[in-house]
Formats: sequence, C-alpha cells, structure tokens
Amino acid sequence: MSLYRQTLPQQRKMLQNLDHWLDKAVTFAEGKKFDANTLLVARLAPDQFALARQVQAVCDNAKMTAVRLTGRTAPAHPDVETTIPELKARIGSVIEFLNGLQESDYAGAESRLIELPFAPGMVIRGDDYVVDMALPNFYFHATTAYAILRHNGVDLGKRDFLGTIALVSR
Amino acid sequence: MSLYRQTLPQQRKMLQNLDHWLDKAVTFAEGKKFDANTLLVARLAPDQFALARQVQAVCDNAKMTAVRLTGRTAPAHPDVETTIPELKARIGSVIEFLNGLQESDYAGAESRLIELPFAPGMVIRGDDYVVDMALPNFYFHATTAYAILRHNGVDLGKRDFLGTIALVSR
Repeated sequence: MSLYRQTLPQQRKMLQNLDHWLDKAVTFAEGKKFDANTLLVARLAPDQFALARQVQAVCDNAKMTAVRLTGRTAPAHPDVETTIPELKARIGSVIEFLNGLQESDYAGAESRLIELPFAPGMVIRGDDYVVDMALPNFYFHATTAYAILRHNGVDLGKRDFLGTIALVSR
Repeated sequence: MSLYRQTLPQQRKMLQNLDHWLDKAVTFAEGKKFDANTLLVARLAPDQFALARQVQAVCDNAKMTAVRLTGRTAPAHPDVETTIPELKARIGSVIEFLNGLQESDYAGAESRLIELPFAPGMVIRGDDYVVDMALPNFYFHATTAYAILRHNGVDLGKRDFLGTIALVSR
C-alpha cells in the first residue's frame, strides 16, 4: 500500500470528522446557553495542550505528513485561532491543501529521508516516519481533542470519531 | 508496505508503551500512598469506558487486527482484570501471541474480506480495514488510556506515548 493511501485520504476524513465534532460542540453550547469558544481553553491536565492547540496540532500533523512525504510547500498557519469558526477555517484550509495533492506526488516517499524539528542531525525514512510518528501523533491529537469535548459533555460517540467506513455488502 | 509492517510491530511497541504507562501509574500511586488499582475505574465521561476497559480494548484491537488479517486463532481474553498486574499480564499475553506471527502469515491480507461484529451482512477489505478501522480504533483506545492517566496526574509525556522512533544519524 502506498504511503499516500496510508495517510492522505484517512487524515482528510479525520479532519472532516473533527470539523463535525466542533459543530456538535456548538450545538451543545447553544442548548446549554454558553459561549462555545470557552471550550477552546479546556484541557485534561494543566501541563497538556488545551482544545484549541489540539485542533491546531491535528491540522499541522495532517499538513506536515503530506509536506514531508512529498516535499511540497504548504500554506503557513500561525497559531492565532481563538474561536471555533477560525479553527474550522484552518481545518478547511488544510483539506484544500490536501485536495491539491495526487498519489503520484508520493512517488519514492518510502525512502525519502525526513528531518524532524526535535531531532537535529537525525533523519527518519518516509516509511518509518508514517508508522512510528505521523499516524500515532495524528491520532494522539485527534483523540485528545475528542476526549476534551467528551469530558465537557459534548454528545459524541465512536461513530463520530471513525466517520465513514468502507464496508460493502457481502 | 505490507499490512504486517503497517500494524504488528507498531502495535506491539504501543502495547509495550502501555505497559510502561501502567508502571508509571504504580510509581505515582506509591509516591502519593494510594492504591494504584483505584485508577482502573477512572474515566473522562460517565458514558465512556473506564481505564481498565480502555486497556482491554487496546489489547483486543491489537489481537483482532492480527487475527482478522491472518485468519489465525488467538487466545481468549475474558474481560475479568481488576488490577494493574492482571492487565499487564494480558498485555504480555497479546505480545506473546503477536511474537508468534510472521510477515508471511499476512500474504493476501489486502484483499481478505473481513466481517465485523457490529455490521452483520457487511464486509470490509483488509487494506481498508487497516486504514479505516484497525489503526484509528487502536490509537483511540491507547490515547484515551493515556489521557485518563494524564488527567489523574501520572507523570507521562509524548515520548512515553510514542516510544522508540526509528531515527538514524544523517
């Protein structure tokens, strides 16, 4: 299976799911009559990223997975969002960037040597990067964003997390 | 990349990481002089699985990913654990099962049609199953277990989550 298939369509779908979780957070806040944006500073531990930063991290992980595997240049996204509509716009911008990539852009990605900001002087092969880093990190931040919303009472379940599954009739 | 490489070594490593998180929970409890097993009923929302069930789910996801992709039979693990040592034994049992599988056992797994308990009459191809279901679900429960421990003050960070990364010198 190509590294494209292992990453881009699924990360794009998860970004769409994340967008949907934020919509559910807004609906929940409307029902309870509070400002939904107050959820963005919620966190599960005092030394863990709050919800806004988790959403930004999901966006960055999806974007940087594609950038590192293809060598393409992506739009910059400074971490300035303080409202749910702003975060939804960032999600949309990353989805638009992903929509501009083709499977052929990932040719040779398996053996591409990738630098990571926290490991100067070191590299990781593209295939190891996807398995060891990109997917675990991406799901880490997606699940933590989901968990913060669940912890605060937003009506979410596993189907919201997974989104559409490629089931077919027997 | 084979479905073996996409799943087994990484899921085994994450099970080892999970075992290490539980050790850190025990150390934390000893320092605070409480029974570490009380953490096993902690949860982030009243209608979400508690920690013990999250750990069981990580074990089951790793085991069932291998079973569904290879057709092999795995040991049964009834959900009876109520202590951290019992959960660590279950993790060890799944690692031992995974250690008995070879990459060749996954031949043809991409096109294998897999049944899922929640979707009677439907199937999913092995490759779609890995991308859409197995990895998202596995990381969902691993991250939630980690988040419950973090929420309760256990000293964990991202490096504990990711474990060893295949970085090499440039």
